[in-house]
Amino acid sequence: MLRPQHHLLSPPATISPSSAVSFPPLPPRVLPLRRRGAGTGTPLRGKTSSAVRASSAPGATESEVVVVVAHREVVRALASRAEARLGARLLPSAVPPDVAEFRSGGAGNAVGSLDVRRGAPGSTIDFMLQSSLHCKVPNGAIDITSLLIFLNASTDAPHFLMEIIQGSPTSIVVILDLLPRKDLGLHPEYIEKYYESTQVDKLREKIEELPQTRLYRSQSLFVRSAFSPTAILISIDCGQGGESTLEEIVYGQLATVANELLQIWLDCCADRASEMEEGERESMLKRDQIVRSKSIEVDLTSNLPRMFDPDVASRVIAEIRKAFGVEEA
Amino acid sequence: MLRPQHHLLSPPATISPSSAVSFPPLPPRVLPLRRRGAGTGTPLRGKTSSAVRASSAPGATESEVVVVVAHREVVRALASRAEARLGARLLPSAVPPDVAEFRSGGAGNAVGSLDVRRGAPGSTIDFMLQSSLHCKVPNGAIDITSLLIFLNASTDAPHFLMEIIQGSPTSIVVILDLLPRKDLGLHPEYIEKYYESTQVDKLREKIEELPQTRLYRSQSLFVRSAFSPTAILISIDCGQGGESTLEEIVYGQLATVANELLQIWLDCCADRASEMEEGERESMLKRDQIVRSKSIEVDLTSNLPRMFDPDVASRVIAEIRKAFGVEEA
Repeated sequence: MLRPQHHLLSPPATISPSSAVSFPPLPPRVLPLRRRGAGTGTPLRGKTSSAVRASSAPGATESEVVVVVAHREVVRALASRAEARLGARLLPSAVPPDVAEFRSGGAGNAVGSLDVRRGAPGSTIDFMLQSSLHCKVPNGAIDITSLLIFLNASTDAPHFLMEIIQGSPTSIVVILDLLPRKDLGLHPEYIEKYYESTQVDKLREKIEELPQTRLYRSQSLFVRSAFSPTAILISIDCGQGGESTLEEIVYGQLATVANELLQIWLDCCADRASEMEEGERESMLKRDQIVRSKSIEVDLTSNLPRMFDPDVASRVIAEIRKAFGVEEA
Repeated sequence: MLRPQHHLLSPPATISPSSAVSFPPLPPRVLPLRRRGAGTGTPLRGKTSSAVRASSAPGATESEVVVVVAHREVVRALASRAEARLGARLLPSAVPPDVAEFRSGGAGNAVGSLDVRRGAPGSTIDFMLQSSLHCKVPNGAIDITSLLIFLNASTDAPHFLMEIIQGSPTSIVVILDLLPRKDLGLHPEYIEKYYESTQVDKLREKIEELPQTRLYRSQSLFVRSAFSPTAILISIDCGQGGESTLEEIVYGQLATVANELLQIWLDCCADRASEMEEGERESMLKRDQIVRSKSIEVDLTSNLPRMFDPDVASRVIAEIRKAFGVEEA
């Protein structure tokens, strides 16, 4: 998950007062969304509606108004494209209902959803994980949306990872990478195969050209080390009154870049098994295991319990550990 | 050497005309420098003289006026401190005179110096390499100064690496790192030992606070992968008329940060052999070898021949290969 720890622990200082946005009780299906063509790769530049806003979900009563977060729509559309392409290589969702959707029992200020689909036997897919978390904080809310598609030991190709953290209606942090599975210092040919010949660095350059972007650096040195040298690690801050600008960027350039990266991953990484010597495969598996364990430790086990009641948090963490294939430390 | 390739191939667009600075014939010892207390860790904030200027070297005739480049003074003072501390752990310099100092034979527009001291038997030092290159280009000059102190296989501690590239009187690129020797994704304990407990990331934060700094990214994905997550990879651009500001930063904050990093390296990395299993040591050596070969390939073999006559370039490259312990590909 590689979630930047301090965003959850201490929300960005720029969080704006939420006076304009209310966070009403959520409908039974957490945050059902009106799909808006996001994630199709077509920039929707003309849009001007606000990034976080209230709208009626189909079938929702007046008290069940939903908050539509632009970035979540984009990530979900992306996930749908991946699902369509991977087809039968993904098994049906196998997450218990109380993990598929969960909320904090007490204060009721946090809701979340988690979906995990394992890869079918014989495929290169280990699992595909989607999650979204929404948590009220004193000055507003934090929304975190993740899409991870991890590969198994039949290939050494990078995993796909996207995570967006929204701490205010005008700013987000974007983490988007093809997560390497080998030591790049030891394997220049791996860089050539998956990062140079695919020209993924151009996508990073494209999004970083936007004047609203700043490089984002995780506080965890391990998390920083885990990313590829072409990782998109940025904050996009549109400043006061920049709600509609942020939404335009999210539905526009961000959706385009994320779609192109997913396409490259689907075409060049997800399809084929790699020939490897047994020792090479073992070493890759060991590395994978450490990256997964360490990410969960840095990320979820320290953060989820701060957002959700302990029993909810541990239920969700257990399910993520199961997907990641790592035991409790 | 990990020199960012495109800086030499295509100097930064910001190079200013050199009308104010002449590059006269150099004295026999290339660029002898007046030491100015730089590199002692004491910021010299009050200074206002220009970053690149002409001054008389002791014993120089009028035709042997030297160009003093602030960053070169700082790197040399740093090297002197390292030499003083390492003492007898460094063998005397063993570089032939025509590599210790060299210039392009034809146009005479490039001069350079290289010094390599091998580590004494039984020490942790593999070699210490200092080099400086000065090359006239149509609109000015490029100066590149490097200090590398690499360790041998008795320890897994990071190497020390500093490189400064100056493409105009008002801007430099700084590369400063404790270069890791293990796969950080596989070895979180290595991150903890050499990068977290030493708090080196604070030094990066300190220099990046300066408003004149921008993150610098090598075009080579391999080079980017080789650095630690705490590497200082920045450009410092003081804009038109910013010569004295740049000099203040170089003698001030940059010298301070570089000295502190060197101190940490001397205290925590250079002193002790590490216990390692034989397989671990072999794997580290293999990685070291690839990083060294690849760096030389990305860097020197493509760049030096563009600055110097072929026979000079190949003589110097051969000597650097010898220090690095890598054969021609």
